[in-house]
Amino acid sequence: MLFVTRRVQFSASHRLHNPELSPARNKELFGPCNNKNGHGHNYEVEVVVKGRPDPRTGMFINLTQLKAILEEQVVKVANHRSLDRDVPFMKGRLSTTENLAVAIWETVEPRLPAGRLHLVRVRESENNMVEYSGPEETHGH
Amino acid sequence: MLFVTRRVQFSASHRLHNPELSPARNKELFGPCNNKNGHGHNYEVEVVVKGRPDPRTGMFINLTQLKAILEEQVVKVANHRSLDRDVPFMKGRLSTTENLAVAIWETVEPRLPAGRLHLVRVRESENNMVEYSGPEETHGH
Amino acid sequence: MLFVTRRVQFSASHRLHNPELSPARNKELFGPCNNKNGHGHNYEVEVVVKGRPDPRTGMFINLTQLKAILEEQVVKVANHRSLDRDVPFMKGRLSTTENLAVAIWETVEPRLPAGRLHLVRVRESENNMVEYSGPEETHGH
Amino acid sequence: MLFVTRRVQFSASHRLHNPELSPARNKELFGPCNNKNGHGHNYEVEVVVKGRPDPRTGMFINLTQLKAILEEQVVKVANHRSLDRDVPFMKGRLSTTENLAVAIWETVEPRLPAGRLHLVRVRESENNMVEYSGPEETHGH
Amino acid sequence: MLFVTRRVQFSASHRLHNPELSPARNKELFGPCNNKNGHGHNYEVEVVVKGRPDPRTGMFINLTQLKAILEEQVVKVANHRSLDRDVPFMKGRLSTTENLAVAIWETVEPRLPAGRLHLVRVRESENNMVEYSGPEETHGH
Amino acid sequence: MLFVTRRVQFSASHRLHNPELSPARNKELFGPCNNKNGHGHNYEVEVVVKGRPDPRTGMFINLTQLKAILEEQVVKVANHRSLDRDVPFMKGRLSTTENLAVAIWETVEPRLPAGRLHLVRVRESENNMVEYSGPEETHGH
Repeated sequence: MLFVTRRVQFSASHRLHNPELSPARNKELFGPCNNKNGHGHNYEVEVVVKGRPDPRTGMFINLTQLKAILEEQVVKVANHRSLDRDVPFMKGRLSTTENLAVAIWETVEPRLPAGRLHLVRVRESENNMVEYSGPEETHGH
Repeated sequence: MLFVTRRVQFSASHRLHNPELSPARNKELFGPCNNKNGHGHNYEVEVVVKGRPDPRTGMFINLTQLKAILEEQVVKVANHRSLDRDVPFMKGRLSTTENLAVAIWETVEPRLPAGRLHLVRVRESENNMVEYSGPEETHGH
Repeated sequence: MLFVTRRVQFSASHRLHNPELSPARNKELFGPCNNKNGHGHNYEVEVVVKGRPDPRTGMFINLTQLKAILEEQVVKVANHRSLDRDVPFMKGRLSTTENLAVAIWETVEPRLPAGRLHLVRVRESENNMVEYSGPEETHGH
Repeated sequence: MLFVTRRVQFSASHRLHNPELSPARNKELFGPCNNKNGHGHNYEVEVVVKGRPDPRTGMFINLTQLKAILEEQVVKVANHRSLDRDVPFMKGRLSTTENLAVAIWETVEPRLPAGRLHLVRVRESENNMVEYSGPEETHGH
Repeated sequence: MLFVTRRVQFSASHRLHNPELSPARNKELFGPCNNKNGHGHNYEVEVVVKGRPDPRTGMFINLTQLKAILEEQVVKVANHRSLDRDVPFMKGRLSTTENLAVAIWETVEPRLPAGRLHLVRVRESENNMVEYSGPEETHGH
Repeated sequence: MLFVTRRVQFSASHRLHNPELSPARNKELFGPCNNKNGHGHNYEVEVVVKGRPDPRTGMFINLTQLKAILEEQVVKVANHRSLDRDVPFMKGRLSTTENLAVAIWETVEPRLPAGRLHLVRVRESENNMVEYSGPEETHGH
């Protein structure tokens, strides 16, 4: 089995705040990420697809198409935006990196042939990274 | 002459918008960075100081003190904040990376022995970087 | 399933030497890493935990707590130390990167909720990395 | 189970072109990678081996030997070469990163103890990476 | 004085060979880079421009325009090409990294306001980098 | 003027301790770097040389020779060693990164044509870097 990874990047702002919880509980849960005016990151997104190469092309997915999907559906939508207020695929979700990885999976998966998406990886900073392997697999990494 | 570089990092949001210009001119000048709800970055700040080492210590600046100044005056003030609304040293300045480098110079320079600060380098992303060598030098890099 | 990775770093010295083997066998097995006065590395440690996010918080582990465990149990104990002489969790183990990954697993795992730890990754240099997926899993990466 | 990763790098040129397909189809499939005079990359190859450490050595594979295999069989053969014209292990294969990962697996695997090779990872650029977990495993990453 | 750096990347093949020298002398001078079928790299180009920011915009150069110049004149021309056979700005020059840096300076400089270009930096690999500060300055870095 | 940078890396241990000062003063000056059993780093050394390219070769220095000097005089001597006890060029110097940069300059400079060495850069970790531009120049970076 072969795994192909394509990376894209975008910059966005966000604030962690659940309006159903008290201000004190929000502060306790999210710490400085609850700062009223938001803050931001350079997000790095890696999408891993799996398959077996076609002998005539030596490829199993057209990277140009995969890149176009990611640019169109993720980068163009989220780059230089607020994850909380501007990005449709984050609507109704707290903007944690965990939820962002799930949302990108749900955005990209239906646009690929069935069973091809293997993992979505989101790096929020040098020190923090989240990976999502989809709703059915029990391990991903 | 020796040059010592210390790196720190912080995450912040910002929006490029000059209220004295028209919305159309702001859009034209700043493009997606003018997005109403802001966006953000992982900023990487490198401060370069210069000197000659003391033979007894093999150092000319106490890196622990330099680190403390950067943590106290830059990281603690800007991390998980909005550069436009929360950060005193950016008050009255558009939050371009250029202005951020100048503001960090002006924040750090008076806290170091005279003539020690050589360069402030701010990396906004993998592809964009600004360096400031102070108001008097005619080259810096 | 979601996987959250947190990175920490520390600098330490070590020497590969098994006193139960002859000097010649030690030299043959460990090469320059057997150098009498030791050598050292900037170690990069990544801890991967797994879970499903709580819908109210968008998280399944408190990253502030995970960071505190790693800082307290790994960085504070090993940073600017000798792995062979100063670090309790390496007592009785040769200081290979392999053993270091296992020791960090055994140090961190009991401090997390059961079944949460997924992988410990230790990068000794740009070119060498070890991953440990625990005593029971049969694959990890 | 422990996983040890060793990285090597080489620079090579290549051209994606299947002589059994029409020029137009080649252009459509491979885009700029079909350019007549070729282009090139700094390839980064990571080989992941698995095992359990020997208590007397704290290792399960001799990294010096693994490094020697990779230098001898991959770097020396492909570095500063054309993948299409100069590299025997790529003979009869289109020089996609997918095929390169498979070819490196097939080159390295017989030179290691049976069952030790876990994954071959090839990074063609900052944004593109392929992983191959061998002909029998159904997941690799 | 402020220095703004913009990075772009491209992949290209090349061969170091001076037809005016004997095959033996070419081999001696250029070693494996003289390989008949060429080899290639992921080149990383950083262009440093200098200036003082306009107080109304907080910028002194429009990064969108600088990016467009680099994409149009460097990346589009050299990416997925042979430096020796396909790239007009390398015509008549041996494709050393040194000559590439000079050629990029000569390509970009006339498209910027006079005196703005400060440095061209070309990274051929993790370990090799060349910088060019133009025909008149006597230091650059 | 052209600047060529070559990078090498080595791993070494060290301890900051001046026997002419009291234990308390050593502790105060060097903090955790004064730890009795030492600690270590992956050091990254970049050597910058300057010149004008020879039109027949497109180069002004033979990178193979420069690499050989660095491998022979720096890496082979310091890699997997203690800077304080094993490395001749550090004899009589405290093993600060500052002194290491000066010692590498003094080791490499006499082996290059006069006036060619421009800068020695030593990175001790992601966050700390020292540059030395030689005894006579008044700026280096």
